[in-house]
Amino acid sequence: MVNEKPNYITIAHVGIMDPSSVSLGMSKVHYTNAGIKEKGTFSINMPSVRMVKETDYCGLVSGKKMDKARLFKTFFGKLGTAPMIEECPVNMECKLVKTVDLISHDIFIGKVVATYCDQDILIEGAVDLRKSQPILFSMLDRSYWTIGEKLASAWNIGNSLKNKK
Amino acid sequence: MVNEKPNYITIAHVGIMDPSSVSLGMSKVHYTNAGIKEKGTFSINMPSVRMVKETDYCGLVSGKKMDKARLFKTFFGKLGTAPMIEECPVNMECKLVKTVDLISHDIFIGKVVATYCDQDILIEGAVDLRKSQPILFSMLDRSYWTIGEKLASAWNIGNSLKNKK
Repeated sequence: MVNEKPNYITIAHVGIMDPSSVSLGMSKVHYTNAGIKEKGTFSINMPSVRMVKETDYCGLVSGKKMDKARLFKTFFGKLGTAPMIEECPVNMECKLVKTVDLISHDIFIGKVVATYCDQDILIEGAVDLRKSQPILFSMLDRSYWTIGEKLASAWNIGNSLKNKK
Repeated sequence: MVNEKPNYITIAHVGIMDPSSVSLGMSKVHYTNAGIKEKGTFSINMPSVRMVKETDYCGLVSGKKMDKARLFKTFFGKLGTAPMIEECPVNMECKLVKTVDLISHDIFIGKVVATYCDQDILIEGAVDLRKSQPILFSMLDRSYWTIGEKLASAWNIGNSLKNKK
């Protein structure tokens, strides 16, 4: 929420901090930073590949000039001040817990307090990566990519090296 | 470097903070944390899909008990205290700039001071994502994935929405 209106921005610099905390690295020139600082909340909305145009658009124009929320159906969750996008298959509602000042960027560290997702991407109550069809981003070639094939199971395939010298 | 020996660990919780800073979210139970704090340096070594067994193995066993560096050829860069893995197509040498305490995890924020990579993954002096064959990781299904197809160019495909009402 910025100036009492929902606003969405595409963020390239993100991170996972621990099992329930995430980070957004946002250049201080952005319009959205003030809203996160004021409300102490934000959301992460994971678009699927079919939303690639809207996703890119939100990184091309500023909320200072354009009402980007008009592109989506907005809903609110338990925090009440973190707007979320109904069209996104996964939405995470976050409470700001720490802001790290990195000269040109504000790093907003948030605790995920609730996750909302489409029923049809769930398998046994958990989000299925393939079904959610995430958009991957690479700064190297300034491009969006899809996810490929499952390669191996983690905490598993490495066992074969355990007894080797 | 931990206890004056190279050590490597597989990290699930990582982030990009700004164009030249990265983060590692490392549970405080890990053996490696003390080494990063002592030396004030670390490296990020991006394995390719052909190293998936070794990558997983480094997350299965602790450097407290096993010498994991024996699996790789180690080299050092300009910092002198951040061992790197010759077999990885991309290596980033980092200087610790900040540690954020998140109760169960230390978040190490580092500045990338140098990047080393294989000649054969470069196109016009820049790393080609497809050629580097990165391993993607998903906690949802505790699995490793490959990258898929290029979907669209960023800061570009969204332009088509600019003039729509």
